Amino acid sequence: MEFFNLSKPGDAVSRYMRLLSPAERPHEACDIFSAAGRVLAKDVAVWLDVPSFDRSTVDGYAVRAKDTFGATETTPALFLVSGEVSMGQRAEGHIEVGQAFRIPTGGMLPAGADSAVMVEYTEILGEGTIAVVKDVAPGENVIRRGEDLAKGEVLLERGRRLNAQDVGALAALGTVTVPVFERPLVSVISTGNEIVAPGVEPGPGQVRDINGPALVAAVSMSGCRARFAGVFSDDFEALLGACREEIAAGASALVMSGGSSVGLEDLTPRVFNAMGEPGVLIHGLALRPGKPTILGLAGSTPVFGLPGHPASALIVFEIVIKPLLRALGGECGETIAASAQRQPSVKAVLERNLSSEPGREEHVRVRLVGREGRLYARPVLGKSGLISTLVRADGTVRIPEESGGFEAGQVVDVYVWQL
Amino acid sequence: MEFFNLSKPGDAVSRYMRLLSPAERPHEACDIFSAAGRVLAKDVAVWLDVPSFDRSTVDGYAVRAKDTFGATETTPALFLVSGEVSMGQRAEGHIEVGQAFRIPTGGMLPAGADSAVMVEYTEILGEGTIAVVKDVAPGENVIRRGEDLAKGEVLLERGRRLNAQDVGALAALGTVTVPVFERPLVSVISTGNEIVAPGVEPGPGQVRDINGPALVAAVSMSGCRARFAGVFSDDFEALLGACREEIAAGASALVMSGGSSVGLEDLTPRVFNAMGEPGVLIHGLALRPGKPTILGLAGSTPVFGLPGHPASALIVFEIVIKPLLRALGGECGETIAASAQRQPSVKAVLERNLSSEPGREEHVRVRLVGREGRLYARPVLGKSGLISTLVRADGTVRIPEESGGFEAGQVVDVYVWQL
Repeated sequence: MEFFNLSKPGDAVSRYMRLLSPAERPHEACDIFSAAGRVLAKDVAVWLDVPSFDRSTVDGYAVRAKDTFGATETTPALFLVSGEVSMGQRAEGHIEVGQAFRIPTGGMLPAGADSAVMVEYTEILGEGTIAVVKDVAPGENVIRRGEDLAKGEVLLERGRRLNAQDVGALAALGTVTVPVFERPLVSVISTGNEIVAPGVEPGPGQVRDINGPALVAAVSMSGCRARFAGVFSDDFEALLGACREEIAAGASALVMSGGSSVGLEDLTPRVFNAMGEPGVLIHGLALRPGKPTILGLAGSTPVFGLPGHPASALIVFEIVIKPLLRALGGECGETIAASAQRQPSVKAVLERNLSSEPGREEHVRVRLVGREGRLYARPVLGKSGLISTLVRADGTVRIPEESGGFEAGQVVDVYVWQL
Repeated sequence: MEFFNLSKPGDAVSRYMRLLSPAERPHEACDIFSAAGRVLAKDVAVWLDVPSFDRSTVDGYAVRAKDTFGATETTPALFLVSGEVSMGQRAEGHIEVGQAFRIPTGGMLPAGADSAVMVEYTEILGEGTIAVVKDVAPGENVIRRGEDLAKGEVLLERGRRLNAQDVGALAALGTVTVPVFERPLVSVISTGNEIVAPGVEPGPGQVRDINGPALVAAVSMSGCRARFAGVFSDDFEALLGACREEIAAGASALVMSGGSSVGLEDLTPRVFNAMGEPGVLIHGLALRPGKPTILGLAGSTPVFGLPGHPASALIVFEIVIKPLLRALGGECGETIAASAQRQPSVKAVLERNLSSEPGREEHVRVRLVGREGRLYARPVLGKSGLISTLVRADGTVRIPEESGGFEAGQVVDVYVWQL
């Protein structure tokens, strides 16, 4: 069985991820206005109650709830309006039995009040008196001090990738800078005797590098900084020199693609092994496309070898390398694993049979086509060397290792390309 | 019916989107290495065949397919190995009847050859002769000239947001810079008499601005450049001045949140109307949270008013403002509409009943919880003023306008927050 001794992609990712020590990662202070997408380097605890005072959630009157007890349209409770709360100011005075203060939404409850009555349930009787026609419970229409964020609790954990709402919560605490992990610098290296660098006119038998620019884009979209090392021929010394130069230039990881020339199956692993212990850790995945993938460590630097075919390289990047780069960037491994299990998908009806060899996981490129109010998944045919197959597809259908495929007419999950 | 005269969110987005004229948008040249996430300003046509020559997809021998006809293990076809193709070089010579050239994966087919035989199906007989034990069809194991990208076809259309594979395809054409739309500069303005700017210590009755930093983050993650104008009190002249200043500073759109103080329901629309015709176009959405949303145009500048409650503001941003900013950035409206219909989701079992008032669309914050191998959607309770309800949620469940809600135990679609 061809795929018998190959690693399962999911196992390979989780085994490898355990080797990425989070301890040594450098971090930096980041202004919260630029913090979205960055990974928190330390837990953020709530150090003050938010809000710091009881606030009304309605326009109306601050009261003592028990004074409204039993109030109805026919038996209203009467209140003396003995004050008014201004927005953004301390509520002066104290509410006594049978008293109410006019209060705006967001206003600070005066001392003695425990609830607010909506203006819609009141009636002005004149001479500073109102009738309340519906009773309220203690705490009703109020956000209590610390109800949003309570002092002492952990708000955001180290390893969390911050989103817009996290930034809002940090702002609520008055936190204007946060410690985040530095974004890893990832070098992208293309190899192949037939490959020429972008911008170079290819000669006969030569082709332009596709993987370099595409992987630089993919690395950038994974929260890392990307550096393009260039195109190198399939030559041990040249590649080893290029890899060492990238590490000397500060690369935290290398992503190399290519080396598909005949007799060169072992070039990338030889280079990786020569760079330092432990070298190649995983060579070959039970994955299609993507079998010749290599995961290694040169000293403490992750080194990844991807297939030369563009469609294979990008699919392997998405499935295997991206989660590892997220972990390298300090994101919590459990979060990454959970997000893989909860990967959003679109349900679509498969347009034709998809067969797969059991024993390997297969990712089939599909285009989403809407027809008569239904969504169909149309497999994009074409060899894995063709970049056009990816451009024409909207995402992939995953055929699990143990499955022989899907039949036309079945509803399948389509994992839409992330932008 | 409270929501009777309000616009449906989907209708509001599509009506408003038609007003955003794409004609005038400035564009700039962008290096393909930085082009991921940018929006193409012109169609890109394929101007040369990719590959520019017939390539082998296997290691083996280039042959004339008809010479292999009928070859089997028992009746192999014999070939004279009359040449060898080097990677990245023109194949010298011409294949005649009964001849084969050794060829590597990716090598250029020599003249006269129309297919390649995998080395696995050949046997070396010595003296430059091989036996082929399996026949091939014309074109087999070959990527033909132009098979990936054929000269003349449109590769990528104006208005497409470029992803990693698009960048790869551009590289394949030798395109190193592309015309992309400039990223719109969007100013974020916070209002509220009780709000203090980030970094300012709030006095009694005051609270820190949450929406400003959160919306700056959300705008940045939508492919725009964000500019924080600051926090302003609920004052007509102050707000009008701030809005005019932002437009003078180059803002292509304004996103204002707040104005929730009592009696100020009409402050934002008055400011928007004073800024120029046509002013407020849509005021009020049949959406919860998010009813008080305002969409307007001050001259040709989009102006958006969001609720002051952080959870409401961010949910409205996600559902209504983000697609409009994507359109403002030049992205094709049909693409945006299609992506809304194809929004990926996670299926989860609802943990408790969710009831909703028919006549409005409701978005309920939920947390995803894994238990005994199943995924559950747990509604996050809390008032829409609480930022913590968003931080604790993983996404939202959408209850359509016509629905009264969902029951506990039902499988629902959870739209996971985008990062």
